[in-house]
Amino acid sequence: MSDDVTEDTMDATYRALCEHGYADLTMQDIAEESDRSKAALHYHYDTKRALMLAFLDYLFAEFTDRAGDPDGDTPAERLGAFIETVLTPPERDDHSHEAFGTAILELEAQAPYDGDIRERLEAFDDFVFEHVRQYVAAGIEAGEFRAVDPEDTARFVVTAIDGARTRQVAIGQEMACSRRLLEAYVDTYLTSDAGHQRGPASGDRVRSE
Amino acid sequence: MSDDVTEDTMDATYRALCEHGYADLTMQDIAEESDRSKAALHYHYDTKRALMLAFLDYLFAEFTDRAGDPDGDTPAERLGAFIETVLTPPERDDHSHEAFGTAILELEAQAPYDGDIRERLEAFDDFVFEHVRQYVAAGIEAGEFRAVDPEDTARFVVTAIDGARTRQVAIGQEMACSRRLLEAYVDTYLTSDAGHQRGPASGDRVRSE
Repeated sequence: MSDDVTEDTMDATYRALCEHGYADLTMQDIAEESDRSKAALHYHYDTKRALMLAFLDYLFAEFTDRAGDPDGDTPAERLGAFIETVLTPPERDDHSHEAFGTAILELEAQAPYDGDIRERLEAFDDFVFEHVRQYVAAGIEAGEFRAVDPEDTARFVVTAIDGARTRQVAIGQEMACSRRLLEAYVDTYLTSDAGHQRGPASGDRVRSE
Repeated sequence: MSDDVTEDTMDATYRALCEHGYADLTMQDIAEESDRSKAALHYHYDTKRALMLAFLDYLFAEFTDRAGDPDGDTPAERLGAFIETVLTPPERDDHSHEAFGTAILELEAQAPYDGDIRERLEAFDDFVFEHVRQYVAAGIEAGEFRAVDPEDTARFVVTAIDGARTRQVAIGQEMACSRRLLEAYVDTYLTSDAGHQRGPASGDRVRSE
């Protein structure tokens, strides 16, 4: 399949997911958003699920390309820019982030029943976790951050990011609000006392349990 | 409907949700888990959705009863006990928390399309938010916690709780791990410097944006 055809199919899948959600989505819905017939789609993808797995791979390539090298001269700046990018999906057409976030939440609810979907969600998660961990570790090394545990800190940040996405869907909490809270967490938890370590209470407690 | 009948129907709904998820659930599935026929269920609940709304109300009553008065002599202890209760659902039968968490995530993905579901999810959220806010405010008042912003802190805690639930489903992160991270956050962020306020950098930054 040429890149143009892939691009058209993936854009169509995005629009169809925003329009119909995942559970009710059909290959016909996707074909109607694309330049191709349903038969042409089936030529490349046996099932809706196969197309969805390819779509997740496509999203992952797009996401890692977009988020992989955040702006900033220091680890703290790069961490801030990375979190902002992760919580600000790219604008696409006129479809809202909320509708797409809803479809992704539906897909996440499939993960316990579908190892291939879970594997792809884990790839996103590992990527975000590993980037946050690296910036935190680099910031500690550079004396910008307190001596927290980089792994636990990264795991807590990805947990808050997942919560931000869930809340946007479930109760309509604005991403801008979640972003502000996460930035405040990073500023306060990581940087306030940099250079003035607060004794064993903080870092050790995180590691000891 | 008598309390016993309600109890049986709600328990049957719980088991059927664990077994089938929300999207594929039918009234017949619920009847098969209960002592009643599908016709008897329909006598009380017109649709699966009506039964689901009643089920969410039932869960809410059960949850607020279980979590509303956490153990502890101090605000910090009560906050810790509250978070532990929220992240530890009650044991029921032999069904796993993961399966139920998955069904709840599916329901959350319905919220953008269904104001009655969203209203109920908001009630859970308001309850958790308001309790956390109260314990944080009381802890500051008592000199146990630093002078953080209680509202922003509570909003960040509920975001992390939602993230914990999502990650259990999407990538299989253990609740015990999420609970440990949240406890470490509360210990480090709120209590480390109690009585030694760290100047304007922390609290003000949270409020200023």
